[in-house]
Amino acid sequence: MTERNIHVQPASGLAVEDQDIEVVERKGIGHPDSICDGVAETVSRALAQTYIDRFGKVLHYNTDETQLVAGTAAPAYGGGEVLEPIYLLVVGRATKAYDGQRVPAESIALQAARDYLAEQFPHLDLGSDIIVDVQLGEGSGDLQTVFGEEGTVPMANDTSYGVGHAPLSETEQIVLQTERQLTGQYADENPVVGQDVKVMGKREGDHIDVTVAVAMVDEHVPDLAAYTDAVDRVRDFVSDLATEHTDRDVTVHVNTADDYDAESIYLTTTGTSAEQGDDGSVGRGNRANGLITPNRPMSMEATSGKNPVNHIGKIYNLLSTEIARSVAGEVDGIRQVQMRLLSQIGSPIDEPHIADATIVTDDGVAVGDVADDVRAAIDDELADVTDITRQVIDGDLTTF
Amino acid sequence: MTERNIHVQPASGLAVEDQDIEVVERKGIGHPDSICDGVAETVSRALAQTYIDRFGKVLHYNTDETQLVAGTAAPAYGGGEVLEPIYLLVVGRATKAYDGQRVPAESIALQAARDYLAEQFPHLDLGSDIIVDVQLGEGSGDLQTVFGEEGTVPMANDTSYGVGHAPLSETEQIVLQTERQLTGQYADENPVVGQDVKVMGKREGDHIDVTVAVAMVDEHVPDLAAYTDAVDRVRDFVSDLATEHTDRDVTVHVNTADDYDAESIYLTTTGTSAEQGDDGSVGRGNRANGLITPNRPMSMEATSGKNPVNHIGKIYNLLSTEIARSVAGEVDGIRQVQMRLLSQIGSPIDEPHIADATIVTDDGVAVGDVADDVRAAIDDELADVTDITRQVIDGDLTTF
Amino acid sequence: MTERNIHVQPASGLAVEDQDIEVVERKGIGHPDSICDGVAETVSRALAQTYIDRFGKVLHYNTDETQLVAGTAAPAYGGGEVLEPIYLLVVGRATKAYDGQRVPAESIALQAARDYLAEQFPHLDLGSDIIVDVQLGEGSGDLQTVFGEEGTVPMANDTSYGVGHAPLSETEQIVLQTERQLTGQYADENPVVGQDVKVMGKREGDHIDVTVAVAMVDEHVPDLAAYTDAVDRVRDFVSDLATEHTDRDVTVHVNTADDYDAESIYLTTTGTSAEQGDDGSVGRGNRANGLITPNRPMSMEATSGKNPVNHIGKIYNLLSTEIARSVAGEVDGIRQVQMRLLSQIGSPIDEPHIADATIVTDDGVAVGDVADDVRAAIDDELADVTDITRQVIDGDLTTF
Amino acid sequence: MTERNIHVQPASGLAVEDQDIEVVERKGIGHPDSICDGVAETVSRALAQTYIDRFGKVLHYNTDETQLVAGTAAPAYGGGEVLEPIYLLVVGRATKAYDGQRVPAESIALQAARDYLAEQFPHLDLGSDIIVDVQLGEGSGDLQTVFGEEGTVPMANDTSYGVGHAPLSETEQIVLQTERQLTGQYADENPVVGQDVKVMGKREGDHIDVTVAVAMVDEHVPDLAAYTDAVDRVRDFVSDLATEHTDRDVTVHVNTADDYDAESIYLTTTGTSAEQGDDGSVGRGNRANGLITPNRPMSMEATSGKNPVNHIGKIYNLLSTEIARSVAGEVDGIRQVQMRLLSQIGSPIDEPHIADATIVTDDGVAVGDVADDVRAAIDDELADVTDITRQVIDGDLTTF
Repeated sequence: MTERNIHVQPASGLAVEDQDIEVVERKGIGHPDSICDGVAETVSRALAQTYIDRFGKVLHYNTDETQLVAGTAAPAYGGGEVLEPIYLLVVGRATKAYDGQRVPAESIALQAARDYLAEQFPHLDLGSDIIVDVQLGEGSGDLQTVFGEEGTVPMANDTSYGVGHAPLSETEQIVLQTERQLTGQYADENPVVGQDVKVMGKREGDHIDVTVAVAMVDEHVPDLAAYTDAVDRVRDFVSDLATEHTDRDVTVHVNTADDYDAESIYLTTTGTSAEQGDDGSVGRGNRANGLITPNRPMSMEATSGKNPVNHIGKIYNLLSTEIARSVAGEVDGIRQVQMRLLSQIGSPIDEPHIADATIVTDDGVAVGDVADDVRAAIDDELADVTDITRQVIDGDLTTF
Repeated sequence: MTERNIHVQPASGLAVEDQDIEVVERKGIGHPDSICDGVAETVSRALAQTYIDRFGKVLHYNTDETQLVAGTAAPAYGGGEVLEPIYLLVVGRATKAYDGQRVPAESIALQAARDYLAEQFPHLDLGSDIIVDVQLGEGSGDLQTVFGEEGTVPMANDTSYGVGHAPLSETEQIVLQTERQLTGQYADENPVVGQDVKVMGKREGDHIDVTVAVAMVDEHVPDLAAYTDAVDRVRDFVSDLATEHTDRDVTVHVNTADDYDAESIYLTTTGTSAEQGDDGSVGRGNRANGLITPNRPMSMEATSGKNPVNHIGKIYNLLSTEIARSVAGEVDGIRQVQMRLLSQIGSPIDEPHIADATIVTDDGVAVGDVADDVRAAIDDELADVTDITRQVIDGDLTTF
Repeated sequence: MTERNIHVQPASGLAVEDQDIEVVERKGIGHPDSICDGVAETVSRALAQTYIDRFGKVLHYNTDETQLVAGTAAPAYGGGEVLEPIYLLVVGRATKAYDGQRVPAESIALQAARDYLAEQFPHLDLGSDIIVDVQLGEGSGDLQTVFGEEGTVPMANDTSYGVGHAPLSETEQIVLQTERQLTGQYADENPVVGQDVKVMGKREGDHIDVTVAVAMVDEHVPDLAAYTDAVDRVRDFVSDLATEHTDRDVTVHVNTADDYDAESIYLTTTGTSAEQGDDGSVGRGNRANGLITPNRPMSMEATSGKNPVNHIGKIYNLLSTEIARSVAGEVDGIRQVQMRLLSQIGSPIDEPHIADATIVTDDGVAVGDVADDVRAAIDDELADVTDITRQVIDGDLTTF
Repeated sequence: MTERNIHVQPASGLAVEDQDIEVVERKGIGHPDSICDGVAETVSRALAQTYIDRFGKVLHYNTDETQLVAGTAAPAYGGGEVLEPIYLLVVGRATKAYDGQRVPAESIALQAARDYLAEQFPHLDLGSDIIVDVQLGEGSGDLQTVFGEEGTVPMANDTSYGVGHAPLSETEQIVLQTERQLTGQYADENPVVGQDVKVMGKREGDHIDVTVAVAMVDEHVPDLAAYTDAVDRVRDFVSDLATEHTDRDVTVHVNTADDYDAESIYLTTTGTSAEQGDDGSVGRGNRANGLITPNRPMSMEATSGKNPVNHIGKIYNLLSTEIARSVAGEVDGIRQVQMRLLSQIGSPIDEPHIADATIVTDDGVAVGDVADDVRAAIDDELADVTDITRQVIDGDLTTF
């Protein structure tokens, strides 16, 4: 046990799972905001890896400002077309020369962005449907001084804040899994389902409404009947999925804005609303744990694209969530743990100014009974803070 | 009293003012994120007014996606120069033709953005220091159907969430006023102070640390002595200001990252860090009430630039704050009110699905004592929901 | 024989082949100006074909304004890298809606541009080395009225001028063939040779200097010895080629700006100087016949990217050259024919206001002897003017 | 008299003034191509002056690639509006750091471009009608080596070609003066005349047709009658002007594409067709002498924006014209002089490889009679070659 300044305290209210009303949202990977998050984070990882390969350490950069300008499309049964390409501007700062060597930061960013889009969006034609542009400037020169060799614990260069919680509530699990599975294996097997899937869960007491908006892919929709069939199958799939996570009563709504009489339906050519009318940018959607949870404390931090070595906001948001998961997983009797980290400028980032765990225990368990175990679990995670950096670069931690 | 679905309930924990730790932040109007917020909102207001002038009502648009790419600058004692201009891309959707008339949406956006920059940033040379670009596409055609004549209550077209609270805590007041006054009258009288002022307030028990980062304007800084003098005067000013809002112990820190020995100081040519290395975008900084308050529920919504007629997220965030202020102002015995609104798709926006007020009362006052008054105040505000739209267009409500 | 206004007259001076000094230049397909020409013309062809496929005729467009902004590269023996991608902006006007149908003009342009680059530039990585952007506006509405069905002869809508000559002088042939073969079969077999090959031929009396600048591809250049070997082989190849076209004395110079001692050599990563420092745009390089010939009348017209149905400047420049070739090929006794066409606004384009052939005959032949044959050949070509349009769309006529 | 390699020879044909057919064109300063030329040259001058002020000499740059993308406008009697701004991209290369100092090349370029537009285009609102963007890269590093101190004669770094002639033919004078006066004093006094004035002169024998297209400014055109009146007045003005330059028969045509019955007229809001449908770029319009003269040898060189210290193409085109004027002005008996300069790589630019004057003398004068005087005049001008550079930087020589 170190001297770290760790506090464990009881929560003053109910666990979210036990509150009357809960609202949870997740924007799928094909939502314009998430496209920006994904590109920003992929570019970040590519730059970090390049710096490590060439210099043995990550140099200064931040690529957390991608902007997407929607295109124009004319989806149609059986396959429509993109009329005006989506415009994606990757913005950020990077070290372009170090130790006498020049670094192809912009070329790497461009390649990483295009590769990511190619992998994630099978219905988006990279040759005609999207223009990827890059503007990476250089940052302030002295920012590099905060960086050490890989594995050493850097100093905090800002006062920043991270929050995380565990375990996920049932509604959160349903929302998260619905999007992951729909845009994952389900979309692989059912190419009619595009990548732009938006899920909102709203629980009132013991009733959960799951509202899903799915961008259907026109090439796989020959007519309205095929569309309604696809909608029905998504509804069934999500209903089944929900029962794996809750015994509560669940109602699933899919593409509720459709008007079949007017044949106004959610049809796309590319599987994302970025093709028509929906712009996007980094940090406007999901928080670092993949969810938007207005019932919980949230950080405004745009995590995706930030440098995982020295950006305290990114590290502490990811770490808070990791710590909360670890506590909830390792310590018995925890119904909910809410974690909060606040950095101290000039101190090593494994010694936060504040490390607070706010606990709701199971019935019959007192916070005092678990406090030492919780503190120990937190301490272990803080000691391994540089693991966060490594996992981010390896893509083992998602940021949106 | 209407049939509106309004709930008033006691808070389960302490008022933020009474919690042990409180963190509050505000990014000044010259912070790159705030520049984007300000431009986006100004463009929005210009478009709304144009539509009203020409068609008697606001047409569909959203201009909430401005992206700023930082420039490069070489500040110097007595006056440096911008080497590479800032690039500002105004992105959004607008109706460009209606009822047989074409609307100069992009020209209006360009003019509004440039006018805003000219008014707010006296040290930014619009001829050489910034490139303002505009890309406004058109949205999905049928979105217009949700709009009625001005003054009628529109239907909610999305499930969206708004939060607000009142009154501001002492720390919140200090943070808010510090930025407003520094970039307002103080900067007018002391042009050495730029518009990029970032304020963080951290209260632990009864001690408040106010950390201020002020971009000093090099033209008014002949040498290091002048710089340290300017820093000292800001410190004194903020210290005095703080005592107007609290009896607690306050320590003010100004430009703490400076290293005088290395003459590494916070000097700028234009009064904003956008000139060198700091990118920005809409919705990444202050919430609709002007603050970032991790101790409070917050909405992810990017309020600035959204259409104030039918964007529920914008309206409900602004309205929640207005309601909270109204309740706190009109009803005696309220220590803190936290307001939450959730829309119901397809219902008039003055009839939210959820309208919850969570109350902390003063000692000796029960929530039951004030509930009817609170409910009545909320009801009145909801009845006047379209006032929000009008105030936004007139610039009487700030969004960041 | 029609009533066309055709004039045949003797030249007042010597044939270029017989003048003392002759200068000829050709920018290869990988020169930044030629890249723009090639992209502009390819985009034009793709749009024309799309309009024909969808509407049975070519609609209004012009895509003759592509701009290339050079990248930054670090070529190195064995293979270097592009540091900052080339930026290519395809600019023009196109019809985006016709007869109730929308046309994906920008997506088609983007795809055509990228496909062209992929086909022509094997060393350019389309994923990382170049950003292709597109801005196609719409033209003035009533321009469409000048268009008829395919095959009908359109009216001239401008006063425009075209010039052409035949046969090519020896120096012209050498310059043209040197670039074509080096960037063609030779580059296929010798990938060390990039696509940016610039050839200048200068003849003084009976001595021809051929100066060739060849962008060598670093991946295929392990060291300086390999470079000098590649240079030597190009010199030998061009020397051999020249002897096929002339009995005059020829000296070939390759990459004369190299400084071997300083190892300052013409090495590139992508095979084009667009990777570093050389911008380009349409119409700045080769004329419609593939050459720059200061000894001859030339048109300023940027031919590439222009609409081949109604752009008189494009049609008349291509047609003048075709007519001159036809005359030189079909009529005996012609040493040089210089053709000139001037349109008449409002008249069918097969009835030019001026159609002048200026002739230098072989010794012993009078212009009067051949005038009727020449006139007949010109008349035949003018009657088939719409063939030019078809050949351009099919890619059978080059424009640069 | 030096050892310069100067040749004086008789022309083999007639002076252009005596040929049967002559075609001359000038694009006015508000033509989209000329806007680009003017911006490019202004930016060039601003950079050159900056380098001189800071370093005592001009450093490497070329800014000869400005691209204009037309806007969209809705002109109307009494004043219409620009719907979508013109987009102007200033492209080029510049030295951004020298001798330890950084140079604000992009900011200077932006300012110079905007200042030029503000001065030249009174009807263009810089706040709303045009977006000026800048992309200046850095060139190849070793290009600087060719530069010496100001006033020293640099070495040619390329084989380049310049041509010029004097005196102007009557048709050339009429075309040149028509545009200059219409967009000059006439437009000052008659603001209905915009800056986009295109003049074509066509002489057949002794009849000259002058065709003028004038962009009328809608704010000053209340109705069709006012428009036709403005057209009539321009026609009268040009007719009067023509008689000052010729005794030949002149017919003036103004805005011949108008169709009054359909009220299809040449009305603009900004005084330039760049507001709607006409793109532009550098080097596509007037040659260095301000004219397009298909009857004369022309250079393809884009003169505007090129570095006036070491860009041989620019210097030799301007110098050829200056020499021709000097010869025609100083030597009696010259009816036409056509000048040609060809550089020699590695030699001082005042010692061209070829300096040819081709002369048509007045009746009764032999070339031999004037050859020595001509040679001396050429020699003087070559000796003063660096004057060209100075005059270009001072704006005393126009380039388009």
